[in-house]
Amino acid sequence: MADFELTRELQIPAKTKIVQLVMDGLGGLPRQSDGKTELEAADTPNLDGLAARAQLGLAVPVRPGVTPGSGPAHLSLFGYDPLKFDVGRGVLSALGIGFDLHPEDVAARGNFCTIDDDGLITDRRAGRIPTEFSQKLTALLRETDLPGVQVFVETVKEYRFVLVLRPTSGQTLHANITDTDPQKTGVPSVPAVAEDEASEATAQLVNDWIAQAREILKDHKPANSLNLRGFAKDPGFPKFPDAFGLRAGAIATYPMYRGVAKLVGMEVLPVAGEALEDEVETLREYWEQYDYFFFHVKKTDSAGEDGDFERKVEVIEHVDEVVVPAIIDLDPDVIIVTGDHSTPAALKSHSWHPVPTLLWSRYCCWDGVKEFGERACGRGSLGVFPASDEMQLALGHALRLNKYGA
Amino acid sequence: MADFELTRELQIPAKTKIVQLVMDGLGGLPRQSDGKTELEAADTPNLDGLAARAQLGLAVPVRPGVTPGSGPAHLSLFGYDPLKFDVGRGVLSALGIGFDLHPEDVAARGNFCTIDDDGLITDRRAGRIPTEFSQKLTALLRETDLPGVQVFVETVKEYRFVLVLRPTSGQTLHANITDTDPQKTGVPSVPAVAEDEASEATAQLVNDWIAQAREILKDHKPANSLNLRGFAKDPGFPKFPDAFGLRAGAIATYPMYRGVAKLVGMEVLPVAGEALEDEVETLREYWEQYDYFFFHVKKTDSAGEDGDFERKVEVIEHVDEVVVPAIIDLDPDVIIVTGDHSTPAALKSHSWHPVPTLLWSRYCCWDGVKEFGERACGRGSLGVFPASDEMQLALGHALRLNKYGA
Repeated sequence: MADFELTRELQIPAKTKIVQLVMDGLGGLPRQSDGKTELEAADTPNLDGLAARAQLGLAVPVRPGVTPGSGPAHLSLFGYDPLKFDVGRGVLSALGIGFDLHPEDVAARGNFCTIDDDGLITDRRAGRIPTEFSQKLTALLRETDLPGVQVFVETVKEYRFVLVLRPTSGQTLHANITDTDPQKTGVPSVPAVAEDEASEATAQLVNDWIAQAREILKDHKPANSLNLRGFAKDPGFPKFPDAFGLRAGAIATYPMYRGVAKLVGMEVLPVAGEALEDEVETLREYWEQYDYFFFHVKKTDSAGEDGDFERKVEVIEHVDEVVVPAIIDLDPDVIIVTGDHSTPAALKSHSWHPVPTLLWSRYCCWDGVKEFGERACGRGSLGVFPASDEMQLALGHALRLNKYGA
Repeated sequence: MADFELTRELQIPAKTKIVQLVMDGLGGLPRQSDGKTELEAADTPNLDGLAARAQLGLAVPVRPGVTPGSGPAHLSLFGYDPLKFDVGRGVLSALGIGFDLHPEDVAARGNFCTIDDDGLITDRRAGRIPTEFSQKLTALLRETDLPGVQVFVETVKEYRFVLVLRPTSGQTLHANITDTDPQKTGVPSVPAVAEDEASEATAQLVNDWIAQAREILKDHKPANSLNLRGFAKDPGFPKFPDAFGLRAGAIATYPMYRGVAKLVGMEVLPVAGEALEDEVETLREYWEQYDYFFFHVKKTDSAGEDGDFERKVEVIEHVDEVVVPAIIDLDPDVIIVTGDHSTPAALKSHSWHPVPTLLWSRYCCWDGVKEFGERACGRGSLGVFPASDEMQLALGHALRLNKYGA
């Protein structure tokens, strides 16, 4: 069956509204003291009240046992199986810094590195140079010049940057190009090589650019060279509004999530600041104009990454206090509360654990468990399910899908 | 996505260790007296203690409602979807008797049968002749002779035997050959027919052999003829150690399980005797040399097949007493306790019921149910899941997989 053929075929017009509240890295692990996870330890009267009338379950972002990055994890929440809908790393990096990527652009991840007098790589990360130094270097690299192509060089963090090539004279760039990073030290970088005929001209441009860039960098030890990886273009995915028949608005403050939402064709709505209250204000303001809202909360993940159990608890409590009642007030037809992946404070990183998830609608056969947490969700009636099923479930509960067959 | 592409791509070096304890035919059904299954009736303080800190679930070996044989059931536990990774019956039969099958061999299942004077089959199983009689016949059949091929004929049980042809002069044998068994009586056997051009020479050899064999058997009524079925070669599956990045050791006392482990490229470790204690001793001895251990317990299944509820309970209790503490003592990073399929005493046979499964690691969000049994697993947070997911889950919990995507 073709991508989204079922939802395309069955979708019917409706005035119902869906909110998908995504607390980034929501899932956690038990703490020593009382065996509670971050979500279980949090005092969340509003989520618990919603849970009592909702179905609970555990969402698997990619595949069992597999820890997802933010890009694939969000694609899954949007209904795109991330193993099938593969976004190149260059594109993800560009999205991650909020770069306004055009469909015709080729993007790559760049790393500054250190080479010795023989051109052999001695440090693939250039001693993890400070971001400020990196910014000076990327400014210098913008002086490079390629025929018929506009060159963008943007710092990500420390030794990492993004290179974007944008054609200006009508030619098409292709991204089927190998990495220059040999993935080890003591050897030289390798040239970028086209893996198909169509990519040959672009590979030539890339190698020209690398030569210019290395000439500029040669006296800037430890960042006296660079490598490029993950050449990619916008993959041209099917668009979310067509796939699901929903006018879709994305509310997120961080570039990565705004970028992924844009990649699938959502409209990314303006948010006045970085606070939850700002995001809620945007939700209220645009309520009438969209059928579906992706509402992203970043700081659960940041706290988890920092290994800060207590701060993650506080962020969840803040969401419960500020966001959940505001959503309920707007009277949507379907509310999903979930995360893109787990980020247990105990692991200080993304993890493979399935994500506690709540689905509320007027037409759900609620589990009647007045608690939103990993263990309650582990016993929930949604079971352990692929996160990429959430949108289709939401459409059903929003009475937006016709009967399949007679 | 190609087979195991995900785990091949994401695997990272680690020193963590995984033990998969497989109690053959573990799953059971309630007895009349108190409604408990074999596993629930067993007194298993060690398994229950482990369960309290583990995630529970029910593993589906092949597909819902489908009863697996031992070969497919184990392939699934090893991460190989048994519908995709099909092992021919000839190969399974050879593995089942511990035959040292080479990649170039062609194996087939053989049945002695009875024919009348017109050559029509009157009994497809030769009156289920005793194994001893069968052994005399297979000894006679070893006197057959084919050009450029070494012939092995080995009794399995009663009327069943295995034929293996091994090329000795460089030619390649092919196994795309039809059965000779017409699957009914009152008709003659049919010739073996090549289903592709490559198999024609081998089919000719097979028919030559059958002619010689029937000549030898003609006066040995009721076993005065034979049929061959399930021609197959070692399917050349992807190897478990490469697929999962694990040095894999198999501890099993029965030929079938040692054979399936070998088929996927595990190293089959020597065990001094048939007792659980012998298997534990092997585990201890080889602990440092492997990252993953398949630890097989046969007698749960044998008791189930015999319809002996009490004996199955005793075997489970013995495993709890002897095997589980020994595994815990070795301090592995991930412990999975499961079965390859269910063998309820009530059915006296393999069954389709999903298998109670426990996954313990330092990083599991334990269910907190201090009980390992079918009902506890039915409410567990692993849900009802494909047994072929177990290895990927184990790799996640062993911190052996990189993040997927950025």
